[in-house]
Amino acid sequence: MYSFMNDYSEGAHPKVLELLIKSNLEQNTGYGEDTHTIRAKESIKKLLLKEKADIHFIPGGTQTNLLVISSFLRPFEAVIAADTGHINVHETGAIEATGHKVITVPNKDGKVTPKDILEAVRFHSDEHMVKTAMVYLSDSTELGTVYTKEELYKIRQVCNREGLLLFLDGARLGSALASEENDLELSDIAELTDVFYIGGTKNGALLGEALVIVKEELKANFRYLIKQRGALMAKGFVAGIQFEALFSDGLFFELGEHANEMAGRIRDTLKALKVEFLAPPVSNQLFPILPDEFLEELKEEFAFSVQKKMENDKSAVRFVTSWATTPESVEALCGFLNQKLKR
Amino acid sequence: MYSFMNDYSEGAHPKVLELLIKSNLEQNTGYGEDTHTIRAKESIKKLLLKEKADIHFIPGGTQTNLLVISSFLRPFEAVIAADTGHINVHETGAIEATGHKVITVPNKDGKVTPKDILEAVRFHSDEHMVKTAMVYLSDSTELGTVYTKEELYKIRQVCNREGLLLFLDGARLGSALASEENDLELSDIAELTDVFYIGGTKNGALLGEALVIVKEELKANFRYLIKQRGALMAKGFVAGIQFEALFSDGLFFELGEHANEMAGRIRDTLKALKVEFLAPPVSNQLFPILPDEFLEELKEEFAFSVQKKMENDKSAVRFVTSWATTPESVEALCGFLNQKLKR
Amino acid sequence: MYSFMNDYSEGAHPKVLELLIKSNLEQNTGYGEDTHTIRAKESIKKLLLKEKADIHFIPGGTQTNLLVISSFLRPFEAVIAADTGHINVHETGAIEATGHKVITVPNKDGKVTPKDILEAVRFHSDEHMVKTAMVYLSDSTELGTVYTKEELYKIRQVCNREGLLLFLDGARLGSALASEENDLELSDIAELTDVFYIGGTKNGALLGEALVIVKEELKANFRYLIKQRGALMAKGFVAGIQFEALFSDGLFFELGEHANEMAGRIRDTLKALKVEFLAPPVSNQLFPILPDEFLEELKEEFAFSVQKKMENDKSAVRFVTSWATTPESVEALCGFLNQKLKR
Amino acid sequence: MYSFMNDYSEGAHPKVLELLIKSNLEQNTGYGEDTHTIRAKESIKKLLLKEKADIHFIPGGTQTNLLVISSFLRPFEAVIAADTGHINVHETGAIEATGHKVITVPNKDGKVTPKDILEAVRFHSDEHMVKTAMVYLSDSTELGTVYTKEELYKIRQVCNREGLLLFLDGARLGSALASEENDLELSDIAELTDVFYIGGTKNGALLGEALVIVKEELKANFRYLIKQRGALMAKGFVAGIQFEALFSDGLFFELGEHANEMAGRIRDTLKALKVEFLAPPVSNQLFPILPDEFLEELKEEFAFSVQKKMENDKSAVRFVTSWATTPESVEALCGFLNQKLKR
Repeated sequence: MYSFMNDYSEGAHPKVLELLIKSNLEQNTGYGEDTHTIRAKESIKKLLLKEKADIHFIPGGTQTNLLVISSFLRPFEAVIAADTGHINVHETGAIEATGHKVITVPNKDGKVTPKDILEAVRFHSDEHMVKTAMVYLSDSTELGTVYTKEELYKIRQVCNREGLLLFLDGARLGSALASEENDLELSDIAELTDVFYIGGTKNGALLGEALVIVKEELKANFRYLIKQRGALMAKGFVAGIQFEALFSDGLFFELGEHANEMAGRIRDTLKALKVEFLAPPVSNQLFPILPDEFLEELKEEFAFSVQKKMENDKSAVRFVTSWATTPESVEALCGFLNQKLKR
Repeated sequence: MYSFMNDYSEGAHPKVLELLIKSNLEQNTGYGEDTHTIRAKESIKKLLLKEKADIHFIPGGTQTNLLVISSFLRPFEAVIAADTGHINVHETGAIEATGHKVITVPNKDGKVTPKDILEAVRFHSDEHMVKTAMVYLSDSTELGTVYTKEELYKIRQVCNREGLLLFLDGARLGSALASEENDLELSDIAELTDVFYIGGTKNGALLGEALVIVKEELKANFRYLIKQRGALMAKGFVAGIQFEALFSDGLFFELGEHANEMAGRIRDTLKALKVEFLAPPVSNQLFPILPDEFLEELKEEFAFSVQKKMENDKSAVRFVTSWATTPESVEALCGFLNQKLKR
Repeated sequence: MYSFMNDYSEGAHPKVLELLIKSNLEQNTGYGEDTHTIRAKESIKKLLLKEKADIHFIPGGTQTNLLVISSFLRPFEAVIAADTGHINVHETGAIEATGHKVITVPNKDGKVTPKDILEAVRFHSDEHMVKTAMVYLSDSTELGTVYTKEELYKIRQVCNREGLLLFLDGARLGSALASEENDLELSDIAELTDVFYIGGTKNGALLGEALVIVKEELKANFRYLIKQRGALMAKGFVAGIQFEALFSDGLFFELGEHANEMAGRIRDTLKALKVEFLAPPVSNQLFPILPDEFLEELKEEFAFSVQKKMENDKSAVRFVTSWATTPESVEALCGFLNQKLKR
Repeated sequence: MYSFMNDYSEGAHPKVLELLIKSNLEQNTGYGEDTHTIRAKESIKKLLLKEKADIHFIPGGTQTNLLVISSFLRPFEAVIAADTGHINVHETGAIEATGHKVITVPNKDGKVTPKDILEAVRFHSDEHMVKTAMVYLSDSTELGTVYTKEELYKIRQVCNREGLLLFLDGARLGSALASEENDLELSDIAELTDVFYIGGTKNGALLGEALVIVKEELKANFRYLIKQRGALMAKGFVAGIQFEALFSDGLFFELGEHANEMAGRIRDTLKALKVEFLAPPVSNQLFPILPDEFLEELKEEFAFSVQKKMENDKSAVRFVTSWATTPESVEALCGFLNQKLKR
């Protein structure tokens, strides 16, 4: 049974694995001070057009989120996120466990708006309340939507005016950048945010997220913080090698494009069938609204998750594609959808 | 230049890598609920003779230590460790960052004694002080020594009498179990401790520690805690596959034996040269005391670390061997030592 | 200018102050182990009909809230509160600073309902989310409303079914118990909650809240937790003496009644003037909705706070009375209201 | 039975109590924004010769310590203290509970030396260890000794060179400043430290410590931190009024002098009896070493605590005097000592 459950079902892209195999018996310096890690960082920095950015490879996304938020906020400061934000819903209170409140604003298709950020800032007006100090975005969002350059720029402006840090969670940045809706490049993100990360786990690596610290004031002593949270891997080169491979010959971008192309075929099939979506289908996560009775049949052939019970005996489900999704499996799904949903 | 700097310079043992390669394109369930992880756990449980033990694979050692200590202690409770203990010295305050004091006792060749544990318990006598609640050991220790069954049993007894949990950090358990001094089996450790872990990172895996929770009362909801600390890997199968390989056909034990055999040859050479050691040389970490002037020459040929400045222009250095250390490199080191130190 | 800003503008009720003066030069045991504290606890326990309840006097309300929540929850557990709850809005993230998420449900006149509790429990369904473990109520609420016995009983039932602790913040319990709407006695609260507190600061003391731990399993080692959070006062007898006075001859209850009687007169005047309220006016906090233009005049004569901007150029304001509010000041306010608002 | 157990057995000095009584029915602004608090701060600032110092009144000492340390250190930073330091031994891990390691150095009569500070800084050399960032002193110390201007100046120098903050716990500063050994004034302490506090609880107040933040960079948003830790009292004026009284007409200094004079008489008696001391007896805490058999008799007449079991069937005990200690009780103790210890 083919799974569209998520984008982390398979191991590493063959080119990534190949470099791991090739360098397996080398003796490398520990804790991310090896030559592979250094080369990977250099490759990424070239794309950022930020020579002075600091890059750190962190094993996972939740860990990266909690590291960033707890490292850059003072104890009474809080982060603003969409109510659907990963840090609010799906990290078992990891952010609060580091001592910080997550202030939620109502999402608009998974996104945060300047207006809602401003309202949250205004509401928190004195020392009896937490102080707003950071905005957390993800691109692509939990609903698979992406930010445009215009949107990100406007959020940056409100952050500047209100003295907020801007943090972008790019666990699915590979797919976001490959979206038809996207007009951002890595260098724009480096320009418009203070800190962000480029997800490896969901775009072809066994594990690893490339955390980019752009803002000068945030850089000092960050390795202490990584170590303290248990995120400084002894064999740091394992992540370094993988990002070296991902950022050679544009592999990282290719993989995002592949995932989106596979999702695009499913989306087109669904659209032709007049199926509606919970949020605009523009990246590797699709949220079509399907009849409940059909889901029973679908489950027998494909794995996926149910996002939300809707009205009229329908549910929004989630199909996720990845660098590893094959055209054959997509064809099988589309065939099944066409056969069963066409009236 | 060959490095005896540590036991995490290379990637994975070829058999471990092979299984990663073989299963790379499988679609596996996320978050450690895949079949490889389940098989790995079953193999380990057989050796523990504890069918009901809970096993979780955690990416790294510091993370495992902080998870265990913060999960099983109430806020005012503290852990007792040797002053040389990894949690006290080399984890950037990771334990304190979770809110708990590390109470130190003077190490005896890196080990903790029942007498010192008891003194620490007695000293902390009322609510103006933290309450002692856990003992932290590592086997092998930071000085490469190992606990005997008798020693561990006596510590267990004092823990029972004083109501303390016993936690054994087995980041280097592979080498400890392979030591000539060792008379413990995995099943003894499972019997005598409440919680311990079996290190993968330093014994043939790319990353991963197998945390074993023996005590029934500690088991509930542990996956929440793993997730909250950012240690629940999306691709949990990456660790599961590696432990599956390590615990097939006794590979884990073979690798510890190899590391110790390599260390043993170096130790024998040093002993023949009448070199003294900072602590008894019984596992894959050796701490010979060498003349400072000789270290300059040695550095040009081999990588190693200096542990401690001693008297009489000597220093204790650290040589570490691993599953990947080759007989050729050991021969080279021994030859060099013989040539330079023989009078 | 008379202030209806809050119920903590004055010092202590004269009888409370008198006992402080009388015992000022006694030598008392420190840290709340003195005879005054013991007597105060005994007096309270008699009213609770719970001889085995543990009572601790804590300097302030936020401190009591953070102590209770952080002491009785495991790291991944969260507390459910009304969105208007003091712990959610007005404690500068004190709860999150101890590591715990506050899950909010929409308030109903400041109160929490069993249905909303249940929904919050159901939504948090697996280890990627925090686990619901406690319900936080306040009585009276932030909007001055009070819980009936029936309401509290039904919340208790849902807590029992779902394995949740029930914590009642009684910073304004004196006024709540004196409300015409109230049918709870202290002994009911002790029966229906696991832990609660009886506010002194807002009902006649200089400082101090009497924390009552009813549930047996929560009692152990609580003084360690008080000390660790900095809430174990060296001169614990200062709080003990005050509660001794408050719980002699029913003073505590008298003070709540006085506050409510004063508020009742204002409420009756407002009702006669057809003024509407943001929430039912049943305790010492009133939230009348008044024309904005009138507020300017009012400010010149009386101090009060504005709670919320409403439609049609009106605002909900807050008038608070206390044990110290004089009939004269109430008469002055009522006279002013009658004069200005009567058409 | 007269108690020399501690300096917080009685209530408030009569002049302090008098001002509390006099202002009891005033309506004051909450949360320390009242006129008494403002006046108290002004009086203290005059003595500091630091017009721009920020002063905050905090209920207790442990709370002040944890507030200062957790507010001014980043998560990976640690504080250096004497092994006898209150934060290390007698605060139930309050500092660690905020996430920070306390690094101990061996005390010299309760004091910290520049040499030991420097060693601690040097030892903590990379990101695998915490980073030293603050020095914690108390004056007087836990052993009743006091720092000279020369000593404090040299510690300041090492702090400057190594980039460490200097924090002085003045819970017993009243007695320290009144010591014959002392050559510091409040203005010297304000000049030489970054942050310190002036203890009220142990020098005539019911409760309250005056925290002084001298260093400009530490001041911002401190009230948020006070509130978050539960230390912002609703009736902040209760502390403000007391410090207003203590810093009128030099009362604060008089009380320290009285305590020391009482202690001085006991010390002189003991010295005449050739009794030795655990540490130099220079403030209101004395640590004479007395025969164990004598202690049994002493206990029947006076309350005191035993500090440490010594050799030869002797113990160091602790006698503490205060603003409230009467000449009669001192005479009684001295008489008893003379009668029983004279050979």
